[in-house]
Amino acid sequence: MLTLYYAPGTCALASHLALEYSGAPYEAKRLDFKTEQQRAPDFLKINPKGRVPALVTDRGVLTETPALLQYIAQSFPQAQLAPLEDAFALAKVNEFNSYLCSTVHVNHAHKGRGYRWVDPADTASQEAMKKKVPQTMAESFTLIEEKYLKGPWVLGDRLSTSDLYLFTIARWLEGDSVDVKRFPKVASHMQRMEAQPEVQKVLAAQQAG
Amino acid sequence: MLTLYYAPGTCALASHLALEYSGAPYEAKRLDFKTEQQRAPDFLKINPKGRVPALVTDRGVLTETPALLQYIAQSFPQAQLAPLEDAFALAKVNEFNSYLCSTVHVNHAHKGRGYRWVDPADTASQEAMKKKVPQTMAESFTLIEEKYLKGPWVLGDRLSTSDLYLFTIARWLEGDSVDVKRFPKVASHMQRMEAQPEVQKVLAAQQAG
Repeated sequence: MLTLYYAPGTCALASHLALEYSGAPYEAKRLDFKTEQQRAPDFLKINPKGRVPALVTDRGVLTETPALLQYIAQSFPQAQLAPLEDAFALAKVNEFNSYLCSTVHVNHAHKGRGYRWVDPADTASQEAMKKKVPQTMAESFTLIEEKYLKGPWVLGDRLSTSDLYLFTIARWLEGDSVDVKRFPKVASHMQRMEAQPEVQKVLAAQQAG
Repeated sequence: MLTLYYAPGTCALASHLALEYSGAPYEAKRLDFKTEQQRAPDFLKINPKGRVPALVTDRGVLTETPALLQYIAQSFPQAQLAPLEDAFALAKVNEFNSYLCSTVHVNHAHKGRGYRWVDPADTASQEAMKKKVPQTMAESFTLIEEKYLKGPWVLGDRLSTSDLYLFTIARWLEGDSVDVKRFPKVASHMQRMEAQPEVQKVLAAQQAG
């Protein structure tokens, strides 16, 4: 049995979706970020980074979204969540997922978590970071729209973990003051994802808590 | 033939090392960041992100260090650069590489590339970011020292792409005003890496340009 620790609105949604699509038996445990459960001693034993997602397996804990996505795809190959048979195509999935993780997610984090990179008391610098988020997110999604999202899915004809992760991060655009309609392929991808029964089931489960 | 675009002192060293260890035929092409060759139109056709590394293969271009590292390991399995036969162990490699990419490299980037996340004219905020880099890098390397680096190699007894990537980023510590001696396992790992003939060859090639 796999156990995923998540919080609503976070990037853990991508791994939650991958588990649902995989057909694997799993349990999703919600952490309350308002009461800082991710920093509680019990959770720090599971993930010393104090973050989600964290996936508890019978061999130990795994963290970092790109690693979890490939682990789930490899462990449940019948779900065909990644082109495991083709090193180049799999690298394209990992390239896209790594870009979301290390550039796009990081852009977004400068809105509410600027204290990571300056003195937490320095509110002026954090405001300055926050102000640029609509620009950096729009630049990243311009690249995704023009260069990466082949359509209908990221890889073209087949759905992969990159679609689950893109959907997860595209949902942040509105809160980041970026109108997704500027990116017609991304907007249409979001609608396609929202129509998937697996997505509807996971979003409902996360809302119900 | 594979062609790697790199610049000295950047994270492209990890992929350069992986190519050397792989035994694959490859060419390494140096970009001059001082004259902004990474932003020249010819290179933007190869990598629209204007960054290194970029790996040109006969099927297209790949970017993002974690993706390149796994691609090289999978394409040249005889070099045993990753535990390809074990989804969990491979996920541990990817977890570590993803952490270096999305957290540790990002911490470091706040020293010289703060303009990515604030108005480039806002030098006060960029100075504030720069000031925190020794702290965030030390925090990340504390986690690596205590939780990730099993020794002698990251995974324990076998060298993997995670060692090449860790070595690449650990070389930034001195410039980030962090004394590597605070982290005895990391310091010993650096020495072990520096003694490897493949590492010496690649560093000499990058210096010769």
